[in-house]
Amino acid sequence: MAGTAYYEFNRDRVIGTAAELFARNGYHGTGMAELGRAVELGRGALYRYIGSKEAVLYAISKDQVDKMNSHAEAVLDRDLEPRELLREMARGLLRNIADHRAEWTVFFREYNALTGERRDDVIAARERYEGYWRQALDRGVSGGALRPTPPLLVKGILGMLNYTYLWFTPEGELAPEELADLFLDALIDGIHV
Amino acid sequence: MAGTAYYEFNRDRVIGTAAELFARNGYHGTGMAELGRAVELGRGALYRYIGSKEAVLYAISKDQVDKMNSHAEAVLDRDLEPRELLREMARGLLRNIADHRAEWTVFFREYNALTGERRDDVIAARERYEGYWRQALDRGVSGGALRPTPPLLVKGILGMLNYTYLWFTPEGELAPEELADLFLDALIDGIHV
Repeated sequence: MAGTAYYEFNRDRVIGTAAELFARNGYHGTGMAELGRAVELGRGALYRYIGSKEAVLYAISKDQVDKMNSHAEAVLDRDLEPRELLREMARGLLRNIADHRAEWTVFFREYNALTGERRDDVIAARERYEGYWRQALDRGVSGGALRPTPPLLVKGILGMLNYTYLWFTPEGELAPEELADLFLDALIDGIHV
Repeated sequence: MAGTAYYEFNRDRVIGTAAELFARNGYHGTGMAELGRAVELGRGALYRYIGSKEAVLYAISKDQVDKMNSHAEAVLDRDLEPRELLREMARGLLRNIADHRAEWTVFFREYNALTGERRDDVIAARERYEGYWRQALDRGVSGGALRPTPPLLVKGILGMLNYTYLWFTPEGELAPEELADLFLDALIDGIHV
C-alpha cells in the first residue's frame, strides 16, 4: 500500500515536471535524460514510472481531458436550468485550465505528436467532452429555453474557453469562474440591443 | 530588381518551409541545418535570407498578424453596419487561418519562444488587432445596435475564431467565411429563445 502510494507520488511528480518542461521547451525539444535530471531519477527508475516520452505526453493530455469528462458528467447529472448548466460546464473547464496551464499548453500544442492507440484515445475523450456540451445545449433546446444552433457552435464555445490557456492569468481581476459566466452570458444573451 | 525579386522569392520559400517544419516537429525540435537541407541552401546562404532561427519564427508570426491588422483597417474604413462589420472581421481571420494553418499553428504554439524586441513587437501587433475588434464592437454600441460588453469578451471572440487553427479543414462542408458568419451570428443574436 505504502509502495503504491510512493509509486503514484513519484509518477505524478514525473508527469507534472514533464508538463512544465514540455510547456517551456516543447515536446520535441525535451529529452528523457533532461526529464530524468529534473526529477532526479536515473534512466531505469524513470522508465519504471513512465515507459516512454510519448507515454508522458499521453498521461499529461489524457488526465486533464478525463477530469473534464467526469466534471461534465457530474454537472449533467444535476438538475440545473440551462443557463446554470452551461455556466457550470464552462466554470469547470476554465478553473481546470487556470490550475493546470502547463498541462493544457502541452495538450493543445503537442497532442498531434501522439500516435496510434494513444492518439485515438485522446481524440475519443475529446469528442466525448464535445458531446457533453452538445447534450447541455440540446437539453436547453428541448426545455424550450434555447434555440437550436448549428452543431459546430460547440467548437466555437470550446474555442472561447480553451483559448484562455494562452492568455488568462488567475492572478488577474477575474476568477476563472467569473470569466466563464461572462463568456457564457454574452453567448446566451447575445450582444445586440 | 531581378535580384530583389529572387531574394524575396527565396526568403518566402525559407519562411514557408520553416513554418511547415516547425508546425510538424516544433520550433525547438527543428534545427537550422534541417531547414537548410529542406530548402537546399547551405549555411551561409540560409543566413543571408534569414539571420537566425528566432528571426524565422518572428517572420512567420509577424507576417500573419500584420496581414490581419491591414485587413481590419480596411474593413473598419468601409461604412458597414455592425453585424456586417463584425462578420467581415471574422471572415478575414478565418480565411487567413485556413490558408495559413502551418503559420498560425507555429504562431500560437511557439510565439512564447520569441525574446526581447521581437517578442514585444509581435505582442504589440496582436494588441493592435484586439484593439480593432474593440473598435468594431464600440462602433456598434455608439450606433445603438449593440449593447456594451466587457472588454474581455474580445478575447472570447478571438478564442472562438483562433481556435479553428486546431480543427477547421477548409475541405469540409463550410467555407471559412460561412463558419465566421455562423459564429458571429450566434454571438450577436444569442442562443436563447
